[in-house]
This record gives sequence, C-alpha cells and structure tokens, in this order.
Amino acid sequence: MIITLKKNIPQSEMDRLISSFEEKGLRINLSHGDMYTVLGLVGDTTGLYERDIQANEWVENVQRVQAPYKLANRLFHPEDTIVDVGGIKIGRGQKLAVMAGPCAVESEDSINEIAAEVRKAGADILRGGAYKPRTSPYSFQGLGYKGIKIMKEAGNRNGMPIVTEIMASQNMDEFIENVDLVQIGARNMQNFDLLRAVGHINKPVLLKRGMSATIEEWIMAAEYIMANGNPNVILCERGIRTFEKATRFTMDLAVIPLLREKTHLPIVIDPSHATGDWKLIEPVAMAAVAAGADGLIVEVHNHPEEALSDGAQSLKPEKFAAMMEKIRKVAEATGREF
Amino acid sequence: MIITLKKNIPQSEMDRLISSFEEKGLRINLSHGDMYTVLGLVGDTTGLYERDIQANEWVENVQRVQAPYKLANRLFHPEDTIVDVGGIKIGRGQKLAVMAGPCAVESEDSINEIAAEVRKAGADILRGGAYKPRTSPYSFQGLGYKGIKIMKEAGNRNGMPIVTEIMASQNMDEFIENVDLVQIGARNMQNFDLLRAVGHINKPVLLKRGMSATIEEWIMAAEYIMANGNPNVILCERGIRTFEKATRFTMDLAVIPLLREKTHLPIVIDPSHATGDWKLIEPVAMAAVAAGADGLIVEVHNHPEEALSDGAQSLKPEKFAAMMEKIRKVAEATGREF
Amino acid sequence: MIITLKKNIPQSEMDRLISSFEEKGLRINLSHGDMYTVLGLVGDTTGLYERDIQANEWVENVQRVQAPYKLANRLFHPEDTIVDVGGIKIGRGQKLAVMAGPCAVESEDSINEIAAEVRKAGADILRGGAYKPRTSPYSFQGLGYKGIKIMKEAGNRNGMPIVTEIMASQNMDEFIENVDLVQIGARNMQNFDLLRAVGHINKPVLLKRGMSATIEEWIMAAEYIMANGNPNVILCERGIRTFEKATRFTMDLAVIPLLREKTHLPIVIDPSHATGDWKLIEPVAMAAVAAGADGLIVEVHNHPEEALSDGAQSLKPEKFAAMMEKIRKVAEATGREF
Amino acid sequence: MIITLKKNIPQSEMDRLISSFEEKGLRINLSHGDMYTVLGLVGDTTGLYERDIQANEWVENVQRVQAPYKLANRLFHPEDTIVDVGGIKIGRGQKLAVMAGPCAVESEDSINEIAAEVRKAGADILRGGAYKPRTSPYSFQGLGYKGIKIMKEAGNRNGMPIVTEIMASQNMDEFIENVDLVQIGARNMQNFDLLRAVGHINKPVLLKRGMSATIEEWIMAAEYIMANGNPNVILCERGIRTFEKATRFTMDLAVIPLLREKTHLPIVIDPSHATGDWKLIEPVAMAAVAAGADGLIVEVHNHPEEALSDGAQSLKPEKFAAMMEKIRKVAEATGREF
Repeated sequence: MIITLKKNIPQSEMDRLISSFEEKGLRINLSHGDMYTVLGLVGDTTGLYERDIQANEWVENVQRVQAPYKLANRLFHPEDTIVDVGGIKIGRGQKLAVMAGPCAVESEDSINEIAAEVRKAGADILRGGAYKPRTSPYSFQGLGYKGIKIMKEAGNRNGMPIVTEIMASQNMDEFIENVDLVQIGARNMQNFDLLRAVGHINKPVLLKRGMSATIEEWIMAAEYIMANGNPNVILCERGIRTFEKATRFTMDLAVIPLLREKTHLPIVIDPSHATGDWKLIEPVAMAAVAAGADGLIVEVHNHPEEALSDGAQSLKPEKFAAMMEKIRKVAEATGREF
Repeated sequence: MIITLKKNIPQSEMDRLISSFEEKGLRINLSHGDMYTVLGLVGDTTGLYERDIQANEWVENVQRVQAPYKLANRLFHPEDTIVDVGGIKIGRGQKLAVMAGPCAVESEDSINEIAAEVRKAGADILRGGAYKPRTSPYSFQGLGYKGIKIMKEAGNRNGMPIVTEIMASQNMDEFIENVDLVQIGARNMQNFDLLRAVGHINKPVLLKRGMSATIEEWIMAAEYIMANGNPNVILCERGIRTFEKATRFTMDLAVIPLLREKTHLPIVIDPSHATGDWKLIEPVAMAAVAAGADGLIVEVHNHPEEALSDGAQSLKPEKFAAMMEKIRKVAEATGREF
Repeated sequence: MIITLKKNIPQSEMDRLISSFEEKGLRINLSHGDMYTVLGLVGDTTGLYERDIQANEWVENVQRVQAPYKLANRLFHPEDTIVDVGGIKIGRGQKLAVMAGPCAVESEDSINEIAAEVRKAGADILRGGAYKPRTSPYSFQGLGYKGIKIMKEAGNRNGMPIVTEIMASQNMDEFIENVDLVQIGARNMQNFDLLRAVGHINKPVLLKRGMSATIEEWIMAAEYIMANGNPNVILCERGIRTFEKATRFTMDLAVIPLLREKTHLPIVIDPSHATGDWKLIEPVAMAAVAAGADGLIVEVHNHPEEALSDGAQSLKPEKFAAMMEKIRKVAEATGREF
Repeated sequence: MIITLKKNIPQSEMDRLISSFEEKGLRINLSHGDMYTVLGLVGDTTGLYERDIQANEWVENVQRVQAPYKLANRLFHPEDTIVDVGGIKIGRGQKLAVMAGPCAVESEDSINEIAAEVRKAGADILRGGAYKPRTSPYSFQGLGYKGIKIMKEAGNRNGMPIVTEIMASQNMDEFIENVDLVQIGARNMQNFDLLRAVGHINKPVLLKRGMSATIEEWIMAAEYIMANGNPNVILCERGIRTFEKATRFTMDLAVIPLLREKTHLPIVIDPSHATGDWKLIEPVAMAAVAAGADGLIVEVHNHPEEALSDGAQSLKPEKFAAMMEKIRKVAEATGREF
C-alpha cells in the first residue's frame, strides 16, 4: 500500500503513523519528493482499508498495490476452482454449463413443460425463481417454498440439478434440503448477513454481480462467503447500470478475461437480465462463450407474453434450442467442449 | 399507460390483448398511426409492470403515464407527512433536523463523548452504527447489540433519540426495544425481505437511497414499507455512483425539489457518505439546506484518524459546531426555523 | 409522439396546442384518462423535439414512438448499407474487415514495419493517428499532415487503404486527398461543425460513439452526416464511460444486434480503446465477432512500451497474428467469411 | 508518480526503465515488497502519462501523486484568479455574477425584451446561443453571426456584456469582435482544436464541463487553453450524465469545494442544463450559491412554450426575478455580496 503524505506533516505525526503500521507487522519504505512524502507499506495489507487511512488529515492519497482479497485471489491460489453442482462441473476447462428455465416458477405444469424443453435442447441445470425480488410490492412475489418443491420435482423428473435465489437467511433450511446451487441476487450482493449465512452451508453459491458493484466489491462479496467457510462460489455477470437505457443494463463482457487474472472462481454470464430483451440474448450469449465464459444462465418460457414476470427477456423453447446450436459452434471454434 | 403496437399485429392478438386489460377493469383508447397502433389504458395501472407487457412480441414500447406507487404518491396524498422520531418532528415546515454521531459505535466512552459534543452543537438525534455493512470481511463489523445498548444510553444521557442501521430482520426485536429511527442502508434498499419486516413495526424508518437506485425505485422501496403497514418513512439521499471518482459518490441534490413533487415523505441528506471527504461536508450540507432538505445526517468523530470506520468522512466536533452555525444562517435565509 | 397533459389544462391552451401540431401536418388522437389527458400525434414527427414540447407547463410527459432519425433508420431503408473503403467492402454479409495499426504514426520506419506485419497477419486497412486528441497539452500531439503522408505511403506499399482521425474541418483537404476512411473520434461525436463538414465530402466516415452518447444520439450524429449528403457512414463502438474503472471503458456489445434493428449502417468494434488493456483485446474481439460485428479496429505496435501514445492497449504483431487465427475460427463458426 | 512492478521483472528491464526516467530529470526511489517492487518518481512528472508507462508488460499499476496540470494548479498558483468580463469581475471574493438570457437568440425583439427583463431583475451578463449544438440536424440551428450581432446590441442597450458559444474556430473573428465571454460547450470540452484556438485570443473563456468528463479531464481542458496563452478561464459545471433519468443530467455540486482545492480558477454553475426542468432551477441555484459558486448561468425566456430550443429548462422573467431575491438572501447568509 502506497500512502502519500503532505509535505508539511509534523515529524511527530509521521512517527505515530509509522509505528501504527509497524505494530501491524508491516515494514515501511520512506521516500521524500518535492511536494509530497511517500510511505510504501510492505507485508499483508488485507486488513487495512484505504479510506480509514485517508481520515488522517496529513494523508493526501492512499493507493492499494495488492488486492484486498486473499481466498479468492489467484495470486495465492493459482489453480482454477471447479464447482460441482449436482454432478455438473463448472469452471475453466470444463464443458460449458447452461442453466435455463423461467424467470419465476409459476405452476407445476409450466415448470415441468419448460424443464423438459430446455433439457431436450441441452441445458444442464434448471433455473427458476421461487422467492422473487420485485420492484413493486404489487407485483407477483413468487410461490415461495411451494415453488422450490415443484421446481425440485421438475428437476428430478428431467435429471437436472436446480438453481434458485435465496432472499432471506431464515429460509436457508428450504434451500439446504432442496436446492443444488443457491443464488444470491444482484440486489443482495452486499447483503452481508446473507453472504455470511451462505458461507456456512455446504452448497455451492451463484453470486450475481450487483448492478453497480465494481469488480473488486464483487470479489470481496465472494471473499465474505469464502471467509465464512464455503469455497464453492461461482461469479455471475448480469449487466451493470449505466446511462444507456436502450438495453435494460449494459453487459460487461470484459470481466471474463479480467476475472480470470484476478480470481480462480468460475464465471457464468446472464444475457437475459443484462439485455432485458429476448431479441438480444442469442448474440450476447454467443459473445460470452467466445470471450471464454464457463457457463450461461438464460431465461426460457413457453408463453413469455403470459409470464408472471420478465417475459420480455425470456426466449421461447424453440428459440432457445436454435441458440444452443449456435453456441455449440462458437464453443467448438474456441476449442471447448459443449 | 401507453402501449405502442407494431402496425402488423394480427387482429386476434390485438383483441386478446385488449380483453386482458379490460378484465383488469381498465378502459382502452385506440389510436392508429402510420407506422404504429397505440393503446391508451385508462384506470388504475399500479398493478401492471411495463416489462411484463413488453414480453409480447407485437409490443414496440410501453410508457407509464401514472407513477407505479400509490401510498407514497403526492397525487393521492397532497399533505406533507411529518414523522415523529422520539419527539423530534421531521418534514416540510418543521425545524431542520440534524442527526450526528460516529460512523460506528466503538466504545461507551467514545459514543458518550461524541454525543455530548454534537448535542452541545445543536444536533437533535444521535447517529451511529452497531451492525456495520463493510466491503471487507476483514474490517471491523460493528459491536452489534452491545453497540445499540451503549448508544441508547448515550442518547438518554444527552436527551437524544437514536438512529442506527438494521442489517437482518432477525435482529428486529433489538431495534423495536431500543432504537427510535430504524435505518435501512443503501446496500439493502432493495432487500425486500427487510423492507417487509420494517413495514410491520411501529417505528419510523430512514430509507437510504441505493447507490444506483433510480428515484422511482427508491420511492417503490418506500411503498413496500408503507404497503406492509408502516407509513412513517423518511427518504435519505446519500449520493449515487457515477463515473466521477474524485468524490466517493455524486451527491444528487436535485432530488430534493423533485421528491417534493412526487411524494409527501420527508427528505434528509447525508453529505458524509455522498462526498466521502470531511473537507466537502460543510459546503454540501449548506447546499442541501438551501435546496430545502428537511434534515441532515452527518458523521462526527472526536478522533477521525483513529476511527474504526470511515474516519475520512467524519467531522471533528469543533468543525461540526462551526458548520452548524453556517447552516443556521442558510436555514434562516430560506425562511426556516433551526 | 405521445403527449400527456395535466388534467386541469384550460380548454383554450389545449386548442392552441392542437392547432400548433395540426399546422405541422400532424393528425391528433385525443384520449381522456382519470388523471391525465393524452394526445397521440400521427404523421412525421422527426422535426419535433420532445424537450421543446415539455416547455409547456401543462405538459406532464412526452414520449416518442418513432425514432427521430430518417436517413439512418432501417424502417425506411431496410437493405444493409455496404461501405466501400478503397476496395474493401464493409457491412453485413461481407467478409469481416480488420483495421489495424499503431495508435499514433510515429515515424516512417515504424509505420512501415507495423503495416507490413499487420498486412501479413491478414489486416485489410491500416489505422494510425496523425492528429491526436490527447488529454494533456504536454503529451505528444501527433505528426499532423506529415503523419498522414507517411501513413499513406505505408498503406500503398502494403496494398492497404488507410483510416485516420480528423480533428478540425480546416484540415479537410489533407484528408480528401490522402485518406480512404475519415474517422470522427469519440470526443468529437457531437462536434456538429465537423459532422457537417464530413457530410459534404465524398469519402466514407468512421463515426466513433461518444464515451457517454446514447445509441440514439450516436445514430443522430450519423444522421447529421447523411443529411448533409454523405451516406457512407460506419458506426464504431469503442466502449462507454461507466462507474467501473478496472477497464478503461465498458465495452457495450449489445449494441451490435440493437443497431441491426434500428439502422442499416455497418458496425465496427474497437476492443483496444474499450478495454485499454492489451491482455483483454483478444477475448473481447472474439466476442465482438461472435455477436456479429462487421469489422474490428485494433491497435498494434511493434514496441508498445516505447509507443508515444496508448502502448498499454496495443498488441504486439505476433499477438495480433495469433488473435487473427482465433477470430477466423469464430467468424467461420458463425457462418461468416474471413 | 508511483509505479508498481511485477516481482519477476528482469533486472535489465528494470535498469532500462529507471534510466528512461532519469533521462527526464527525475529521481527514483526503489522499494521492494513481497509481491511487487515499487518505483517512486520524484520531480516534475507533468509530461508523463500513466497509460504510456502501463504499456510495459512488467508494470502492474501506475499511480499519479501530483496532478498532471501546472498552470491551473492551485499548488503553484495559490491566489484566486479573478476574470474580468466587460467590467464584471468573476471569482472568489467578488460579487456573485449572474448570467441570464434565452437558450437561443431568436429575434431582435425577443432578445431585447428578455435582456431588459433579466437586467431589471439584477443579472450582470446576457447569455444566448447564436450557434447552437443541436442533437438533431432537423432542429433549429441558431441564427449564427446575425444572432451574435443582435445579441451584442441587446447587451449594449441594457449595459450588459454578453456570453455565447463558439462551435468552430473558423468563426473566431466574429467572437473576438463582438463577444465578451467566449463559451466552449460541454460537447466541445475535448475539441482540442477549439481549445487551442481560444487559447490564442485575448478574451475570457467559459469552459463547460463535458457531460462525462472527470474533474481532472476538465481542468486539463482548461490547461490546454492556458498553455496556449490565455489565463482567463472560468469553469462551468452543467451536470453530468448518470443512470438517473428523472432529471436531464445530475448536478454535481461537490465540485465547488473540490475545485477550490485543486485550482484557482472561478467556478460558475448552470442549473438549467443540469436539471433540464424549470421547476428545479431555483432550489438548485440556491444550493449552488450556498456551496460557494462564484456565479450562475440561467436560461430565461419570455415565452418558454414557444421557444425554439430548450424552453423546458427556461424560467419566465417573473420567476427569474423571484429567484434572484431568494439567491440574494442565501448569498448574504454566506457572507457574500450580491
């Protein structure tokens, strides 16, 4: 960590600052410039927070050299993490994993029908929302536990593990018992209570990026889960909020190679939420595969125009099947199995 | 709600769509253009969600005319809501309310000392964090329930109600018993489980704006609380995330007059989090008062450079007292009591 | 165009408004709601600007149904535009076009060497900056006209047309005489004087998206060029400015399918500027091709660490050649020639 | 400047790098960490650009300590710059300067009428657009030179200097002869050709912030003008582009105290463009004055609903006069003359 101090800092204050760092086991490198004095801290700075140091009025600027995460950091864990979701292996070098299904589980019939369709088209894991985070209290809020149960059955019937979102830690038992991959939604990416809770379970976690989370904050959210004992975290990019409103969010695909450098965790892409428009899903999914994603999560609905939520960003089964064919070709062109 | 349909929509599909709206008690106004056909829906459209309608492939565009919130809507509730926080009245036409205190409650001594200082300078309500949402799992996470208790005592000793953040609904009893104003933090603005939970209690709620929440999403979060039975919501702007990194966030002060039009709820401004820099707090606080804010929430620490969190954005007590004097003059210049 | 009026608008004001639209040859559809009255304007609304209408204090909201552009609009021009750049055809259905070369032309030797390298690897068009828009007045500003001339020679020697940026309309003659594709940079996307000037020439234009331009503003900038007489415009996405700083900009690849719907103009992607990091160029370029881009523009430098500008986002020739091989496979997998 | 190098950098490469900096007259401070080696550069680093250094593949990170601007830097020029605009002095410690007038000059009668009204209400300088940057080529583009001449006359008649925007350097003579304060618009903030051109004239310049320009880029644009010989630059904040669309742009008022630290140039605020909504202008203008702005620039039109551009963000004269009264009180409350 590099700390820039104002030139006129009193010697006593400088001494105090230096010993406070030395007490934490850090070595200090001093360098005097014309306008500033610079401290270089050598050692493990993970426990320091830039903004806390900045509180000192003699500090001009604080710059981290080493990332603030350890467990998720590729520097200390060079091998790729492979996460097993009910037998499906997700991570670099594995077969591309596809999760598909409706935005919300609506009924036994509909989830069964959709599950059969996406399975036939080659999807590996069944997705669907039972507890739904909806902007309006007047919108359909999901079937809750009942939704999980009928989704599990649909998964079983079609030989697919299931992924669904948890919204409150008090429902954890339902998830432990029934769900193969526990999703933390974008709106809860910094719900630290929930992150700690999924850190204590023995199920893999799909951690969606918050809509305005930096890549560092996102990896730090994964670090919360890992630091609480659960190493099986999959990162899922689902678009970020920007000034552009022609799409629902802006898909940030450069995260794929960037995360590869910074972390060893698997990376999955959600083209449905990122674009918000079914017509854009196929090309964006193909782009994600070409850029090296380990998996995709896609919304599919047999009657999007009657869907209880997010029909606008759901593919019909036949369009999903057509997309799978195109994705297969892109995957093969990049030397991947599919 | 205005729905633009593609010109070549089949008559049968148009009929189906129209009857689906009529079944919801809406009247339909049809208008045929050269390239598009337009449906105008007349009646209560609060239960409709634009994106659900957009799922229909014949729909080009959906535009809301009436806001999707009812209880928080000034249109249906023209009088200003005044929220009573332990005897302090907050809202338009009331004395400007000032909440001040440390980012985190750190010890009995320090919270007592700070409370006494801010009270002396004229603060009305004591702020402080007991459960702290920290980006890193390795940072100080707050004293938890113990923090609430020593903060309550400090409040009592100095005659100040207290405001502190709730991070998980399972801690609600601690808040009901001890806290005068329950804060929902920016990172939990769309933690719908928590919004529902505070909707069921009989304490006022300070709802911070999410760092990338639109004004409409923010009011909808208030609507969640209100629809669950709690009408006493105070909105708190704390800066939004933008491309500019010279400040921690970008303070959006135009929300003050804008929220006045759209909602009847009180509006409080947090210049500490918005700027992240103690040197900017005073001018931004003065600006907020000039723009008509009903209150301020400001971080004050007696030793910012030793604070366990967010010292960089905390004022020292003497600087806080000086700011209060300047704020008083601005408040008076705008015809307000302080 | 849909105009929502406040319910209490005086009849005289409504009449005045309606006749003002009828005078412009528009038909009006009136619809009365409970809280608002809605006007639907039928006919050519391209000459109207939403914000001008919003100036009327009785207007609540204005919503465009039809896009404000005509010449660039696919609705009125369904066939794809194919732009010929010195014999290289760019547009949908054509061979993927690759433009490559240094950020800035630095010397005769270096541009010749780089040109030969990128040509050998399969690039079609030579890129390079002669007039350079630099954030600092103290940075290298480009070789100017001399740069154009040595670049033209390098292009000739290697059988490649050239593309370079124009920064001021007074230099237009240099471009007309020597340059095959005239680039408008991101910072000048709304330099309307320059847009008009390139509208009057008989050379194709590469129009980069402004770093915070909406898709509509970008197409409107193309419309400026086309409305002044030049139909040969290529749109180039180069990343947008967002809160995320781990990459220089955020590449917005969903624009590829979105622009396909809205306009008939060719679409080229610049992974160098979008990411700002040579390590990210290859995967992002592959993604762009998978998503259907008509071309790529990539920075290549033989000694990036000594480049006079933007070495950080330049590939070395051997890395460029390796990328070309991967791109070829992705192009073929999506049924395209390369 | 602090340069973080990868641990495994070859010694030869390190030596080469160090001598390249020493050749530029810089001293180097070396510090070896566990994972990285850090170089501190001491001396004048204004000529270095972070991204050029980052091109070296052994460089992990580059961090500037000292700002990249010199002439505009308060560190080297501690006294406030006061700019004289036709006798009106603008800058810290001076009377608050108010510029007012229509978005576009439309006719002799209308500009005269508006000038008389704003003068009567206390405005100091007349604003108005003659050359207009319009998003659509089909919108009114301004009266051009004729607009400047009738505006100058209106200014003379009412004893007001005038400010208007230049869009192309070839019109410079018209501005030198007639205009008191030459405006560079937001869309041209990085039109470096135009910046250089106004750097060579002997008239003060009002430099608007680009809609997505960082504060550093904005000051660097001022540095361009100053480095070319013109020290009389006024910075004008006019709102930045963010995800929030309820206002046209997001007004960033924290720039006022922040610019005070970083630069000695005067700061003017434009609440009309920032909000895009006349109802929000007054409170935002009051906030700007409370935060310490040196001046305001406000759009006023006698018939906003018939304005040829931007009527939505124009005040009627009587509302402008009422605002001026409120602003006077805020200015006085903050100890300023008005």
